Amino acid sequence: MSAISYPLPAAAVEATLTAIRFDANGLVPAIAQQFDTGEVLMMAWMNRETVAESLASGRACYWSRSRQAFWRKGDTSGQVQYLRELRVDCDGDTLLLLVDQAGVACHTGRRSCFYRAAKPEGLATIADVVTDPLDLYPPHGHEHAAS
Amino acid sequence: MSAISYPLPAAAVEATLTAIRFDANGLVPAIAQQFDTGEVLMMAWMNRETVAESLASGRACYWSRSRQAFWRKGDTSGQVQYLRELRVDCDGDTLLLLVDQAGVACHTGRRSCFYRAAKPEGLATIADVVTDPLDLYPPHGHEHAAS
Repeated sequence: MSAISYPLPAAAVEATLTAIRFDANGLVPAIAQQFDTGEVLMMAWMNRETVAESLASGRACYWSRSRQAFWRKGDTSGQVQYLRELRVDCDGDTLLLLVDQAGVACHTGRRSCFYRAAKPEGLATIADVVTDPLDLYPPHGHEHAAS
Repeated sequence: MSAISYPLPAAAVEATLTAIRFDANGLVPAIAQQFDTGEVLMMAWMNRETVAESLASGRACYWSRSRQAFWRKGDTSGQVQYLRELRVDCDGDTLLLLVDQAGVACHTGRRSCFYRAAKPEGLATIADVVTDPLDLYPPHGHEHAAS
């Protein structure tokens, strides 16, 4: 990955959107990966608007399927994702976002949402809570990843 | 990640399946990541059968949505994915597979399917073809990732 080049100019945003095949609901899955360590943090969904806003603002934005709403990650929890690079897969139906994650990605207060591993003894928790979830949210509904 | 513990015993397979929330089509997205380098290779879909078979055999198996068929990665192309660890995210609706990828993951002959990046000048190809696709497949249909 080269030097930071985000946010992107409008023409580059359009060129990227053209390559993406959104599904019947207008959505595409987006994997967020910490750009320097390679840690996979979470998977969420984006629509045309949130892809465009992420590229134009340099901050990862998603579409909340449960709330049916635009979601700029970190606006509620403070756990912002700065976008370093957005990649499109071979057939255009999955995105990979290289991000710089402030704090934790998961609403449970863990760095990554993928903190359970299938082991011979069953499903084991393999990562500790590093931030109290009560410090991330007011006591009502939240996303599966830190909003 | 600890020592290799796959394939898993039947009880551990069942415990893992219980934690997964398959969607209305009986599917869950699965991200494949090279276990030692952290490279994200591809994203594909699994159903209950392919999760169970992956855990029980130690080889990544997927459900091909385009062919509506069971797909043991590498059976056609030789580009096998040995499963090192399967992780389940916080709300159980996405999987992360840590794999040891033989050869290339992408049907284009590139190591990863995520070989296009949104740059100021537009969508740029950032990875080279390392295996001729004609060496991966007979000349007919294929998956978006190397079958």
